[in-house]
Amino acid sequence: MSETNVALERLHNFSAGPGALPAEVMEEARDELPVYGDLGSSVMEISHRSPTYTAINESAKERMKALLGMGDDWHVMFLQGGASMQFYQVPLNFLHAGGSADYVNTGSWSTKAIKEAKRCGSVNVVATSEDANFNYIPEQSAWRTDPNAAYLHFTSNNTIFGTQFAEDPTADVPLVCDVSSDFLSRPISVDRYGLLYAGAQKNIGPAGVTAVMIREDFLQTRNIDLPTMLDYGTHVNKLFNTPPVFAVYIVEKVLRWIEKNGGLEGMVARNGEKAATLYGAIDATDFYTGTAQGGSRSKMNVTFRLPSEDLEARFIEKAKGEGLLALKGHRSTGGIRASTYNACTLESVEALVDFMRRFEAQNG
Amino acid sequence: MSETNVALERLHNFSAGPGALPAEVMEEARDELPVYGDLGSSVMEISHRSPTYTAINESAKERMKALLGMGDDWHVMFLQGGASMQFYQVPLNFLHAGGSADYVNTGSWSTKAIKEAKRCGSVNVVATSEDANFNYIPEQSAWRTDPNAAYLHFTSNNTIFGTQFAEDPTADVPLVCDVSSDFLSRPISVDRYGLLYAGAQKNIGPAGVTAVMIREDFLQTRNIDLPTMLDYGTHVNKLFNTPPVFAVYIVEKVLRWIEKNGGLEGMVARNGEKAATLYGAIDATDFYTGTAQGGSRSKMNVTFRLPSEDLEARFIEKAKGEGLLALKGHRSTGGIRASTYNACTLESVEALVDFMRRFEAQNG
Repeated sequence: MSETNVALERLHNFSAGPGALPAEVMEEARDELPVYGDLGSSVMEISHRSPTYTAINESAKERMKALLGMGDDWHVMFLQGGASMQFYQVPLNFLHAGGSADYVNTGSWSTKAIKEAKRCGSVNVVATSEDANFNYIPEQSAWRTDPNAAYLHFTSNNTIFGTQFAEDPTADVPLVCDVSSDFLSRPISVDRYGLLYAGAQKNIGPAGVTAVMIREDFLQTRNIDLPTMLDYGTHVNKLFNTPPVFAVYIVEKVLRWIEKNGGLEGMVARNGEKAATLYGAIDATDFYTGTAQGGSRSKMNVTFRLPSEDLEARFIEKAKGEGLLALKGHRSTGGIRASTYNACTLESVEALVDFMRRFEAQNG
Repeated sequence: MSETNVALERLHNFSAGPGALPAEVMEEARDELPVYGDLGSSVMEISHRSPTYTAINESAKERMKALLGMGDDWHVMFLQGGASMQFYQVPLNFLHAGGSADYVNTGSWSTKAIKEAKRCGSVNVVATSEDANFNYIPEQSAWRTDPNAAYLHFTSNNTIFGTQFAEDPTADVPLVCDVSSDFLSRPISVDRYGLLYAGAQKNIGPAGVTAVMIREDFLQTRNIDLPTMLDYGTHVNKLFNTPPVFAVYIVEKVLRWIEKNGGLEGMVARNGEKAATLYGAIDATDFYTGTAQGGSRSKMNVTFRLPSEDLEARFIEKAKGEGLLALKGHRSTGGIRASTYNACTLESVEALVDFMRRFEAQNG
């Protein structure tokens, strides 16, 4: 990547997650090992209640709220367990006895969220794209929503099928969203939401921390008498137990990097340019075929096929030889997947497109 | 610390957790940023299903089993949520409808574990040292155990009160232990156990990963139809969701460091020498008073008092000025606490003892 002086070592990383992080964040982390500033140890080796970590944690929370335009009515928490734990924790807190919640099913992650919600109560699947192997986002006009639902849950971006909501839905009830794979890649109309959760390992940090944002009025609607660690009320306003200190420390650096690169509008421009470049290359020829339907294409995970599985295998292998890493599609779908999260550079995408043209010329 | 060439920068770290890690592990981590070997990225930026991470994960599991003498009937998992999540997950899996479990109460962590267990079923507190502010480990001969309990739960080391079980208890039922704060500091008679869990951030790694070891026959006694992420069966033999990749990577390095330093017997010698040095200094004078009773003293967290709280505050401040960090006792107890986990060096303890002698001479 040409942004830094490690161009010769860091290759083009299209990993679907854990994904590429900004090179300068990795360099800062290196420079702060084995000793962080004048601390006398690394940041991994200090109490989570120390002034140093408290400052990092508060900085991360405040920067995240500022980037998203969240007011004082929002809480930011750095929890553990990934989105998979949130699939259960959300309905445990907010699906009430005798009530129900609305879910949109756009792929594997939604399906898992629905499965866990059904343990807690009644689930109304308002729309699904399962009929076309999840290659599109169902039109909101056709959703069969329930105005009495506790919330409406959706997955904003689907890493496996390469689809993404083009915009925030609207609903009569609070939205709850798994934003793991496009979090902080664009602005969010946070007023429509009660809760947002994101495993960090796509756009905002390393694996091992889950950002959960919850609005105070929605928090107050949760069920009572929950297991301590699974009650969101345990974690707002205080550190109940030891957080994943190093992961939050990296997240804080990534947030600074986003700010420095124009905030969420800067990310929109950056990600838009990458997506236009890559989809443009796919659409310019019949050799490559995008798998997601037009209006549903993801700017984070670009999925496409070649004329045969043999050619796909050769494509992945030859790309790797040229320093274009982790292009293999998810094991459940096959094909090619280039993940172009925030930290992925335009240079990386251009290198991929250049490779695609040459590969087609040799194999088309 | 004199073991490495960063002696001038790394100070003497007595943090109760997240605690000190071996200096050479921190240096290795630095050297592998921003690029790990020939990977083209850091280890934070690769799929958890990649060959590189798979090798790290398998190495960590195998090394842990080898250190503890665990056979093929043991599963090792790297989960999230800390011991606090295990306080709930253990009884959710193993406290059966109509049954009960035995718990020994030796302090704050045990008390929290008991609280969560009561949500799941009947809890029999077989012994408690609450009568003396948890300054001792109750004699096993006086425990009122239930031969039909699903398991017997205890906390092997109590960070706040500076107490530690001198040896593994015996029981007619499988032992379940929160070994967070003395894990891999000494051998464990694993045959007596059904499950062991340890937040990594004391002896084996950074915060954000929880090692859980479970024996196959005990696993088979768990309840059915549990929330996916909270069912131990979800996590044995496979990675269900994205693990805390970087934290496990550090744990793997710490395990290698333990091996290189004589394994668990090496840790016994190392920790024994540190404890003898520090308790020796405390017992040599009336100026310092150990808070834990004789047979219950912890080799991991050495807690003591000075003649007044004013002197304690001055002790902590002056020690910090000499590069002796994080000696303040837990906020619930006050006093002084020197945590001497595996990675804490004898040189650090000797520096502390030297300071203690000078401080007494000036203030005694």
